[in-house]
Amino acid sequence: MAITVVGSVAYDSVETPAGKYDRQLAGAATYFSLAASYFTQVRVIAVVGEDFGAEQEAVFHAHKIDTGGIERAPGKTFFWQGSYMDNLNEAKTHRTDLNVFAGFEPKIPAAYADSEFLFLANIDPVLQRRVREAMPGVKLVAGDTMNYWIKDHKPALLEMLKGLDIFVINDTETRMLAANNNLVQAARAVMSLGPRFLVVKHGEYGATLFHGSDPNGGSAERAFRAPALPLEEVVDPTGAGDSFAGGFFGYIASQKELTPATFRHAMFYGSVMGSFAVERFGIERLVNLSRKEIDERFALFRELTHLE
Amino acid sequence: MAITVVGSVAYDSVETPAGKYDRQLAGAATYFSLAASYFTQVRVIAVVGEDFGAEQEAVFHAHKIDTGGIERAPGKTFFWQGSYMDNLNEAKTHRTDLNVFAGFEPKIPAAYADSEFLFLANIDPVLQRRVREAMPGVKLVAGDTMNYWIKDHKPALLEMLKGLDIFVINDTETRMLAANNNLVQAARAVMSLGPRFLVVKHGEYGATLFHGSDPNGGSAERAFRAPALPLEEVVDPTGAGDSFAGGFFGYIASQKELTPATFRHAMFYGSVMGSFAVERFGIERLVNLSRKEIDERFALFRELTHLE
Repeated sequence: MAITVVGSVAYDSVETPAGKYDRQLAGAATYFSLAASYFTQVRVIAVVGEDFGAEQEAVFHAHKIDTGGIERAPGKTFFWQGSYMDNLNEAKTHRTDLNVFAGFEPKIPAAYADSEFLFLANIDPVLQRRVREAMPGVKLVAGDTMNYWIKDHKPALLEMLKGLDIFVINDTETRMLAANNNLVQAARAVMSLGPRFLVVKHGEYGATLFHGSDPNGGSAERAFRAPALPLEEVVDPTGAGDSFAGGFFGYIASQKELTPATFRHAMFYGSVMGSFAVERFGIERLVNLSRKEIDERFALFRELTHLE
Repeated sequence: MAITVVGSVAYDSVETPAGKYDRQLAGAATYFSLAASYFTQVRVIAVVGEDFGAEQEAVFHAHKIDTGGIERAPGKTFFWQGSYMDNLNEAKTHRTDLNVFAGFEPKIPAAYADSEFLFLANIDPVLQRRVREAMPGVKLVAGDTMNYWIKDHKPALLEMLKGLDIFVINDTETRMLAANNNLVQAARAVMSLGPRFLVVKHGEYGATLFHGSDPNGGSAERAFRAPALPLEEVVDPTGAGDSFAGGFFGYIASQKELTPATFRHAMFYGSVMGSFAVERFGIERLVNLSRKEIDERFALFRELTHLE
């Protein structure tokens, strides 16, 4: 089933201990759709500038990603410059040029209307909510956010959360949003704001899926932990979270039935796609994968946690 | 099969956001032996002062732990005062009185000589090595250390490591000892120092077992990740690592064969015992467990990571 994703398509300049690159195609919607494209049809809503051309378009088309919703606006594409020199777990932002993204007003192509799945990547929660309301027919809505919106745009974020089924954020964001350092309590508080499912990403330690709240106060029965692969080398952490979300939601959208096992497998596929993303610079690894490589790595993950 | 453990038996005064306690029976060897006692016979080597009496002795005897190797010395028992007010993952030390521990010279009772398993809890690596050499007949030796010994007593630590089969430390210690921030590379470096198995504890994110080194540079085939239980409330983190080690090594010592499945189950039992330890203050939860409760929690852990 098709996923529509709304989010940023951008150019990134990034420096890591392993090297650097300048103004390469990136952005949350790009990482998400490439990762999800190995599982299902993806349709993108974004805005780009006059510096986005046939070459960039071809990256999406090679993965059968529908770019009909990528609007061309006068000016330049969103640009981000960052580095991970001290700490691979935390990006240092050197420059953010919103460019055409500053005036982004998402428009949904008629051809996207039958999408059953919607992913709201990290953008202004006002825009996330607008897209969600413009697509009332979707079956399942997932979304992401970042600390900036939690700190400075909380009312808009809380409104947006009411329309989410699955919220995909990291530890710090979960604790910050709930103002509670205990992850289980924080997760419960976040789910009380709307989403039935909460996926908390722990970076190199994997991710936890929380679902429902247990009236007895217990929690373990309602959680599932997927590991991350212990990696020999992390070349570039950029896009790891978006690739996780793409693998996770892409797998879900590819399944006929949404059972607990579907969600558990989805957590593993999310971790698999995140592990591929960080092995090379930018989107390099994500554009050159095969489903066979993905399933082989899935088997490695299974082996990593399988008890006997 | 019996485990001999050498380490600290102490009194702790601890403050956490959930409350505090004064001068309660504690110490690495105490937590370790209580946790391990649910799986196998445990024998302790330690030194205590004149303030250690029948009441404390009874705690060990209730768990059939052999205290023949706990030496009484003139003076007071080792005392530690700490708190976890800002961060449950990191103890702040307020006071350390070595007392009788300052002159500790481990003596091994003749009755301990047939122990097949030896655990060297966190003490001076010179003493760890001495105990290890005094028990050449043991089948499997595991040990712990802490940042202090890595920083200021590295030569002695490196000598001790040559005699270890299994090294149980945390992320920070692994990275510090290897002077390498990548966990996989750091683990390989640490294993090249002696231990065939390395258990890296990740606190609330579980633990990873590394074993052997893959000549092809791959690593995932040689790692196993056990989760930690997402806990509603952590009352007191003191002794979590020692309880993990006790559950891990106690389970191993209880098994006839040391297969990969044995080690995987041991990682889960370690996590189980760690999760119990932090639920109450000090050793409170560890002294009042049943094997049934332990196995029920083991099932919860399995459910937490089981794919389908």
